[in-house]
Amino acid sequence: MRATLIYGERDIRFEEVPDPVLSTGGDAIVRVTAACVCGSDLWPYRGVVPTRHPHRIGHEFVGVVEQVGSGVTRIKPGDFVIAPFYDCDMTCANCLNGVSTSCLNGGWWGSNDRLGGFADGAQGEYVRVPHADGTLGATPGAPDAALIPSLLTLADVMGTGHHAAVSAGVTAGSTVVVVGDGAVGLCAVLASKRLGASRIVAMSRHSERQALAREFGATDIVEERGDEGVARILEMFAGIGADCVLECVGTKESMDQAIRSTRPGGMVGYVGVPNGGSELPIRTLFNTNVGVNGGVAPVRNYIEELLPEVLSGAIDPGRVFDLELPLAEVAEAYAAMDERRAIKVLLRP
Amino acid sequence: MRATLIYGERDIRFEEVPDPVLSTGGDAIVRVTAACVCGSDLWPYRGVVPTRHPHRIGHEFVGVVEQVGSGVTRIKPGDFVIAPFYDCDMTCANCLNGVSTSCLNGGWWGSNDRLGGFADGAQGEYVRVPHADGTLGATPGAPDAALIPSLLTLADVMGTGHHAAVSAGVTAGSTVVVVGDGAVGLCAVLASKRLGASRIVAMSRHSERQALAREFGATDIVEERGDEGVARILEMFAGIGADCVLECVGTKESMDQAIRSTRPGGMVGYVGVPNGGSELPIRTLFNTNVGVNGGVAPVRNYIEELLPEVLSGAIDPGRVFDLELPLAEVAEAYAAMDERRAIKVLLRP
Repeated sequence: MRATLIYGERDIRFEEVPDPVLSTGGDAIVRVTAACVCGSDLWPYRGVVPTRHPHRIGHEFVGVVEQVGSGVTRIKPGDFVIAPFYDCDMTCANCLNGVSTSCLNGGWWGSNDRLGGFADGAQGEYVRVPHADGTLGATPGAPDAALIPSLLTLADVMGTGHHAAVSAGVTAGSTVVVVGDGAVGLCAVLASKRLGASRIVAMSRHSERQALAREFGATDIVEERGDEGVARILEMFAGIGADCVLECVGTKESMDQAIRSTRPGGMVGYVGVPNGGSELPIRTLFNTNVGVNGGVAPVRNYIEELLPEVLSGAIDPGRVFDLELPLAEVAEAYAAMDERRAIKVLLRP
Repeated sequence: MRATLIYGERDIRFEEVPDPVLSTGGDAIVRVTAACVCGSDLWPYRGVVPTRHPHRIGHEFVGVVEQVGSGVTRIKPGDFVIAPFYDCDMTCANCLNGVSTSCLNGGWWGSNDRLGGFADGAQGEYVRVPHADGTLGATPGAPDAALIPSLLTLADVMGTGHHAAVSAGVTAGSTVVVVGDGAVGLCAVLASKRLGASRIVAMSRHSERQALAREFGATDIVEERGDEGVARILEMFAGIGADCVLECVGTKESMDQAIRSTRPGGMVGYVGVPNGGSELPIRTLFNTNVGVNGGVAPVRNYIEELLPEVLSGAIDPGRVFDLELPLAEVAEAYAAMDERRAIKVLLRP
């Protein structure tokens, strides 16, 4: 089969690789229907995270199950499935606590899992899925093709935006600020809306992203950043800031802006992969009782909650995909996102 | 009148100072019935926080109202009152959000408040209380003398221990670890018990404190610290850690121990005044979804919830006082706490 490898900075190749095979009783082989490029894939693409040797890449996909191992009972060949950006058994203590990203037996796509086998990257034609009964969320029957982009967001960005909102304690009547207008930030707007936030400010200076944020439920747009951005937020919220601020970028600057935009006693929900050694300023947090909660989003735990709303059309997070390319053109997909010509690119094998 | 001043490292004096006078329409003058020394008073006492010039000290007291300003309506002369460790109006946006420590018009004992007047330190015979209607919690009638120690804890340590528990999300069935066996840590055990925690581990190596922790509701004691302490906690909680860890010390080491003792997706509730430049390790927090919440405790907001249980005897946090001295011997009170001869010293004018 063919799959995507990263060779180094801005060097993405689509190449022949070995076909995956069932290697444990708990595996499934999934034929990928749609995959995509994540904002976090851009860190190695840009060389911010060095690539020491060529390796498989990609961690978001949906597809159809082709084969399952002898121990798989819940997932069946022919099922349409959503895979989170990691594998997990959904039976260990951490999975049962709702934190499947800390699965005691799980692992990451494109690397060896804890059982010792290689799990394919997701930007390929097929993927071997460990712990298939735990990892995969199946739809009831084959979904309408038009729903595939939204279903694909449950593999990462919609679940991640939801995690930011849940971590910040967004609930009916909350005031919310979303820092970051990438796919995750936009999904965080949508997640806040469905959780009942009364006011949602999207911080964005790109007109198309602003427009989508508004369609997803943003009530206000703030274009300023840094000190000016914080000043605008304080002005909007009684001089004290918003109840919940969702940090969806991962830089020191964005976290600083998030903390300073939160009212005393409020909460920052963060899901941006921390990049740039941003330690948290505990003395500021202590003095203001601003909490910081979040992390790598356990999106598998959110599939059951979000899937029915995607299937019914109540939410359409798939609108974050503004470019679609054949999987063979994956290198162009990375370039389009790197150059901010696209919010998020959907890839079809 | 006489009051306590700190002159420098280990130099506490009880001296004549001017009597307080009503200086705004919102003031009250309170005759102090009981005061005490706080763990945080030991930072300047030990010279960790330098004392640049002699100043008044102390921020926990209860007493009887002697006079009120013309604008005071809720508090009356003769009322027995509890003062939190700060003054606050209880009408601004932050107070109404439950975070009276961030009162937009409040201030701190022993310094000038935001109205420009000097508010006495609490380790004295009388105190001028700004925003008396907001700041002071009054008991219904004169309380039994035996309840005074427990009432005094509502000025700081019991409310602070409660804040650690609330910030960490302690609720029915939670597993809890308390780092710190000072008065706040012991009150955090008691607070966790009343919130319904199913298992409460007190980390302590002092036999009297262990005994009181057990009486307050601790189910387990762990004497080890650092790596060994963390290993013991993980062993006790399925290898993953506790749901809620209450950090009641404020050092880099104690925060590190708290974070490492929390299970993925759990929460650290911290109330120890951060000392020693302990920034929070965001990458560790991100990978494990451990949140950090808390800060300077808005104890005024908790008086209405905790006071009935103190008055009924349902909780007796006043047991953290294991030494009582005349206020004139305040210097000895500091020494006893500094040398860990006492958990907490009650002072009576």
